[in-house]
Amino acid sequence: MNLEDTLLMMPGPVPVAPRVLRAMSKPMINHRGAEFSAMYDDCCEILADVFQTKNDIFILSGSGTAAMEAAVGCTVGKDDVVVALENGKFGERFKDIAARYGNVNALQIEWGHSFDLSEVEKKLEEGAKAITLIHNETSVGIQNPAEEIGKLAKKHDALFIMDGVTTLGGDTVKTDEWGVDIAVVGSQKCLAAPPGLSMISVSERALAAMDEKDALPYYLDLKAYKKSGDKSQTPYTPAVPLFFGLQEALHIVKEEGMDARINRHATGAKAIRAAATAMGLEMFPQLNDDHSHYSNTVTAMKAPEGVTGNDIKKDMMARGITIAGGQSHLSGKIFRIGSMGNVQPKDIMLTIQELEVVLKKRGVVSELGPGVEAASDVLDTLL
Amino acid sequence: MNLEDTLLMMPGPVPVAPRVLRAMSKPMINHRGAEFSAMYDDCCEILADVFQTKNDIFILSGSGTAAMEAAVGCTVGKDDVVVALENGKFGERFKDIAARYGNVNALQIEWGHSFDLSEVEKKLEEGAKAITLIHNETSVGIQNPAEEIGKLAKKHDALFIMDGVTTLGGDTVKTDEWGVDIAVVGSQKCLAAPPGLSMISVSERALAAMDEKDALPYYLDLKAYKKSGDKSQTPYTPAVPLFFGLQEALHIVKEEGMDARINRHATGAKAIRAAATAMGLEMFPQLNDDHSHYSNTVTAMKAPEGVTGNDIKKDMMARGITIAGGQSHLSGKIFRIGSMGNVQPKDIMLTIQELEVVLKKRGVVSELGPGVEAASDVLDTLL
Repeated sequence: MNLEDTLLMMPGPVPVAPRVLRAMSKPMINHRGAEFSAMYDDCCEILADVFQTKNDIFILSGSGTAAMEAAVGCTVGKDDVVVALENGKFGERFKDIAARYGNVNALQIEWGHSFDLSEVEKKLEEGAKAITLIHNETSVGIQNPAEEIGKLAKKHDALFIMDGVTTLGGDTVKTDEWGVDIAVVGSQKCLAAPPGLSMISVSERALAAMDEKDALPYYLDLKAYKKSGDKSQTPYTPAVPLFFGLQEALHIVKEEGMDARINRHATGAKAIRAAATAMGLEMFPQLNDDHSHYSNTVTAMKAPEGVTGNDIKKDMMARGITIAGGQSHLSGKIFRIGSMGNVQPKDIMLTIQELEVVLKKRGVVSELGPGVEAASDVLDTLL
Repeated sequence: MNLEDTLLMMPGPVPVAPRVLRAMSKPMINHRGAEFSAMYDDCCEILADVFQTKNDIFILSGSGTAAMEAAVGCTVGKDDVVVALENGKFGERFKDIAARYGNVNALQIEWGHSFDLSEVEKKLEEGAKAITLIHNETSVGIQNPAEEIGKLAKKHDALFIMDGVTTLGGDTVKTDEWGVDIAVVGSQKCLAAPPGLSMISVSERALAAMDEKDALPYYLDLKAYKKSGDKSQTPYTPAVPLFFGLQEALHIVKEEGMDARINRHATGAKAIRAAATAMGLEMFPQLNDDHSHYSNTVTAMKAPEGVTGNDIKKDMMARGITIAGGQSHLSGKIFRIGSMGNVQPKDIMLTIQELEVVLKKRGVVSELGPGVEAASDVLDTLL
């Protein structure tokens, strides 16, 4: 099998457009020159629209995890309390990162379940410098209620630190309106850029909190990023080829327009859910209120009776499509289909068709067609 | 001017070979798959030869500064003393990083001067968990005595943490023989890969030191890199296109062979020094003993009377060649020519010729020829 011809239907990395790939093969430039600064500014301008923010935006040469650490490590000190909300693997990661810098007061619920907002508020009432949330918990396919939690954070004067790694660029994120003090995104998800960069928006309130402490991280010191960013530079050597790629990917985002892009993502995920339901599959997330939703960028389904998520992943891989299994204790129990970035309806149609074939061969469904038809019915609204 | 056609003669980033640029435009792959692991292993195998080590090598998605922080942050705690040796900007950076994690006992001397080994030993005698050294202090063009300092570190039972950012891949580094517990290199220097990755070798002694403490950095947690590295993986999303580029760049290193590569670098720097001397320029480093040397990868010269380093840099830039000025308080006072990576004799010949023209126009030299001839005499030994 030619791995280069595999269709990536994962929650990142996602397929990268040929023009983005070509951009990365440009000769090196001096990253301290005017050309780099112009590229940096161009990226930040488009990102401001993606983030819906007037806050500073910095571009870090490191993955989304690096940006998550920068957010917490630069604002939270050893005497500070962080309310860490966990209903999946990335919430757990945010909690673990927070524990290295401050005192964690975790609200840890079963992975894939939705948060009870009154429980969140109880935690905040105990006093907190910051609260961390994964907007879209990629590991379980749930969209957590960022707007509502933003209101609670404001009410209780806690910094609202949000991982928008798999929403920004593909789903609605209103950074300023929701009061997100620090929002984080990775390059290789909805923005469909190559992996290796992360972008972070920082409010004035968060910048002020950084001034109150000597930031411990050095490479991820957002105060240094602020100082350099004001000169359209990065404090340390940036990953120049990835910036070339990011800039091109952001131009694609701008050309499509965020409204159309968000609608395409929502419709794609809805089509996958409709197809899954038509094939008798069950969604993994347990939504217990009106504030949480199924993810618009990654769909997590329970593995059907007698088949593991890894079986399905393997069968799909053999047919040239890479999907994702479950992480940590969910390994085998669920499987996930990403539909983020530049994924088109035809990619989703192929994925559903192949999934239907796989499920039929495994004896899970008895006939071909219902999945494909259900997906088509939803996706055709984009025509 | 076409910036893409500028000759980079800087101490990084360096020109990247077309085949390396092309490698970066390959489609994305799942970084948790077998293809990525094979690439990771291939890189580490070639790097082991570059580092001359049997130690573990990890590849971080972050610049050399990230790897410097990983080295110190994972081994040094708040009750530990770090002897930080500083005779230039990167020594200062290592000191600053160390200060975020432990107690610094700095040996800070005038930038560009060579260390007195008895002073180094005095510092170590005061007790130290670790000692940090910049092997090649890029900011001033001096090669510090790594082997001798390695012996002192061993004698006084301190971890020897060495920044080999601008030596590894272009100059002799005997990681194991010299007792370097942690050695660090950046991708965009002598290895001539694109910027954005750093590689770090870690001895068993250093790994043991990490086990004794809860490492504070998260993204740069070398214990996590060890755990994932044993499975030919990275703990967090790697910058995949940069790995494609690094692998190709390392194949070029392997094809040339390290001995030939080291000789080419040494000869190139020698040629630049010979030319500079023939043109009446003065080297910036002050070498006071037999243990320190002029750098084999970057040459720092004093700006001649009545001309600033930035004037020369600007004149050269107008002629299509990017060289470097001085950093921090050395800005204007010195200028630097990098000759690292895949820089060929013809690139050096062009640079010297253009420098000679610039100096003649500025009235620094009265005739063209002596610089070019001196460079040629040295470089022709490579023919």
